[in-house]
Amino acid sequence: MNPVETYLEQHRERHLAELFEFLRIPSISTLADHKPDMERAAHWLADYLQRVGMDRAEVMPTAGHPLVYAEWLGAGAHAPTLLVYGHYDVQPVDPLAEWLSPPFEPTVRGDDLVARGTSDDKGQIYAVAAAAEAHLQGSGRLPINLKLLFEGEEEITSPSLAPFVEGHRQLLAADAVMICDQAMLGPQLPLISYGLRGLVYMEVEVRGPAQDLHSGTFGGVVDNPFNVLVCVLAQLTDPASHRVMIPGFYDRVRPLSDEERGLLSRLPVSDEQLRLLAGVPALAGEKGYTAIERSCARPTLDIHGMPGGFTAAGKKTVIPARAGAKVSMRLVPDQDPDDIVKLFEAYVRSLVPRTVELEVRTRGTARPVIVDLHGPAIQAAAEAYRLGMGFSPAFQRGGGTVPIVRDFQDLLGVPIVMIGFGLPDDNNHAPNEKLNLTCFYKGVETLIHYYALFAGTRKGK
Amino acid sequence: MNPVETYLEQHRERHLAELFEFLRIPSISTLADHKPDMERAAHWLADYLQRVGMDRAEVMPTAGHPLVYAEWLGAGAHAPTLLVYGHYDVQPVDPLAEWLSPPFEPTVRGDDLVARGTSDDKGQIYAVAAAAEAHLQGSGRLPINLKLLFEGEEEITSPSLAPFVEGHRQLLAADAVMICDQAMLGPQLPLISYGLRGLVYMEVEVRGPAQDLHSGTFGGVVDNPFNVLVCVLAQLTDPASHRVMIPGFYDRVRPLSDEERGLLSRLPVSDEQLRLLAGVPALAGEKGYTAIERSCARPTLDIHGMPGGFTAAGKKTVIPARAGAKVSMRLVPDQDPDDIVKLFEAYVRSLVPRTVELEVRTRGTARPVIVDLHGPAIQAAAEAYRLGMGFSPAFQRGGGTVPIVRDFQDLLGVPIVMIGFGLPDDNNHAPNEKLNLTCFYKGVETLIHYYALFAGTRKGK
Repeated sequence: MNPVETYLEQHRERHLAELFEFLRIPSISTLADHKPDMERAAHWLADYLQRVGMDRAEVMPTAGHPLVYAEWLGAGAHAPTLLVYGHYDVQPVDPLAEWLSPPFEPTVRGDDLVARGTSDDKGQIYAVAAAAEAHLQGSGRLPINLKLLFEGEEEITSPSLAPFVEGHRQLLAADAVMICDQAMLGPQLPLISYGLRGLVYMEVEVRGPAQDLHSGTFGGVVDNPFNVLVCVLAQLTDPASHRVMIPGFYDRVRPLSDEERGLLSRLPVSDEQLRLLAGVPALAGEKGYTAIERSCARPTLDIHGMPGGFTAAGKKTVIPARAGAKVSMRLVPDQDPDDIVKLFEAYVRSLVPRTVELEVRTRGTARPVIVDLHGPAIQAAAEAYRLGMGFSPAFQRGGGTVPIVRDFQDLLGVPIVMIGFGLPDDNNHAPNEKLNLTCFYKGVETLIHYYALFAGTRKGK
Repeated sequence: MNPVETYLEQHRERHLAELFEFLRIPSISTLADHKPDMERAAHWLADYLQRVGMDRAEVMPTAGHPLVYAEWLGAGAHAPTLLVYGHYDVQPVDPLAEWLSPPFEPTVRGDDLVARGTSDDKGQIYAVAAAAEAHLQGSGRLPINLKLLFEGEEEITSPSLAPFVEGHRQLLAADAVMICDQAMLGPQLPLISYGLRGLVYMEVEVRGPAQDLHSGTFGGVVDNPFNVLVCVLAQLTDPASHRVMIPGFYDRVRPLSDEERGLLSRLPVSDEQLRLLAGVPALAGEKGYTAIERSCARPTLDIHGMPGGFTAAGKKTVIPARAGAKVSMRLVPDQDPDDIVKLFEAYVRSLVPRTVELEVRTRGTARPVIVDLHGPAIQAAAEAYRLGMGFSPAFQRGGGTVPIVRDFQDLLGVPIVMIGFGLPDDNNHAPNEKLNLTCFYKGVETLIHYYALFAGTRKGK
């Protein structure tokens, strides 16, 4: 073993204990009550990075939750510079009752570490930092110039990050951006993503009576906002074809090429595996596309929840004053979120009768992205996976959304490398989120290799 | 003034103070946390009835919340016996933020008394009791034999009351049943109802994934339970005709006769008044029927709330494991709730794809009722209104549901008299429920007259 590997081996237990500390901070970005926890998480991270030898590590305020920026530029002007992005914020934890252990008390169950944020994304950014620590503490230096940028608003569509990147192009200048925020296809199937879906998150509210009414007195006399809203929502997707019915929605969708369909068809993920993973009686989706194609290369529309009215246990016979819905659409290249917002609102408005009032709110947008498979930064990642995980990676588009990817691509003009050490059943955004510990440790090793391999990419640039 | 009226006049302030005490007990029958409050409210009522001179007043346990029964039988075997029914339980108070004063802190605002339960029904049963007190304390006796039965489960469809009535036919034997639980058409427009709608309250739950999934990973691959559920619910009613689309739903609906349509058309309630009362941009409902007809003589279907998924502030992109809906249908003669439950469930099952699982739960049923307008007990009520309120009553069917009415009719075999002193804008089941104080005091006077007039009904029986 070289000194870096030896160092890593000797500090495994301390690394796990430190990750526990980080996970215990409930950094839920979408809930205002957790604002102080966001600050605590950011400072914990900056303190850690300073302590392990980064030249500079600081908490940088934004209009929302702070960013953490760190750098080590000791490799010199001739060495390449890598910018690594991740996020320290996490999703809410409801339904809390379904967690088998408290979401912010990390619990080892078999080879899994269970807690909110383990896989998405605190566990993964801790791996990024620990790999840097191993180089810095094990051999006294990194083989490349390394910049780290961890944000606290990824789960709320990153409102502050794009302005920050735009305003700090010099600070963030790099030869590639690596994003470590995804799942592999399996413990022996690492993955490099070359695309991500975009997102439009909308809220629709139908307002009827000035206040809740008794359905005995007014039932049959006025339109019930929920009765109206379900009719509107039912017309957003066609239950038979599973296509989104918003006029113009598919106009700018880039068709899948035969080459790409071939690439996706060779991914070793069966429909039955997906079905078992989801725990559904049967898969469902847009006709004419495979499940893998639908999961990453086709747009969707999902209803996430319908606030309003009476939802507690028991019976209450009200005609609610308001009925709401949270609806998001995953977008693919070359759909434009701003166009989709307009098409959505116009269509919804056309479906609502004059007996009620309608409010449509845009809660977040993110553009879809597709990146070049063939650059040296991505090829180095493939080699790092072979060395660190022991397996060659597959390549696919990701179905999720990391809003900043497209911004990095556009603003910094460099290749994007999307990797990660999660697994498909990590329960991201759901109860009992976990990270497999073997994947975590091999992930740190993969990153150690990547930093070394990246040193050789400049000549290929 | 006679001694009864004098007594009433002298005790107005004390009566109001006592009603405040009663209203302060948060007797919400549907919420388990309020079980002790149900006991407190029942005992408060029984203690009051004992104190003011009823021969017997006791809290009688049931499988659910207790009943309060009281009687004064001193008028003798030749005098008629009246059974008065009401309820001391109230609806939940959410949305709490919309109350202008705390729901269980009675507040006088102008001529209104604002608190949960003022109009529905604690204020009204207090009036029933206070009128008995005025006779007993003012003249030493009542002109009739009086039995009072107040339940604590009206807002949860009275599961214990029908078995109680069935098991206590002798105890409850009477010449008529009076129910004091409704609104007048206006301060100068008293009302006697000759019908009530029934109710079927259902919960529908669509279950998809074994647990909440990330819509980035699984969007497009599995059916989202909310997307499925809105399509099912949208097929329950036709937004154009506003008719319920459950096959067979209207088969047993008794058509409105020309005579009855004439009677309802003469009610002095305009569509514009109803629209303003509801606070909606425009009324809406079943084609071919007036708003008044729709409000009481036609069946309806209302969605009350849709539990499940993510409904808090902020964004969360889950495909929820479960999506639910609380749906109730108001029924009219001669629809049978058990038939409707079966038709509803069969239809909903027919609409759900095999990609999800469905659970349909029946949460409560109540039969519709129609009663004879022309009996002496009802005619005496019309005269009592003229004397107590100063105006002749209108006659209409009620749109709401008092489940026990049909049970009294069937089990005791006597005429039913449905009156009340609320107003249409009392906000029953909604924030800022109130009772007009002038209506309340005149209501007590009306009841004092009714007890006297009822003494003359036996000869007409």
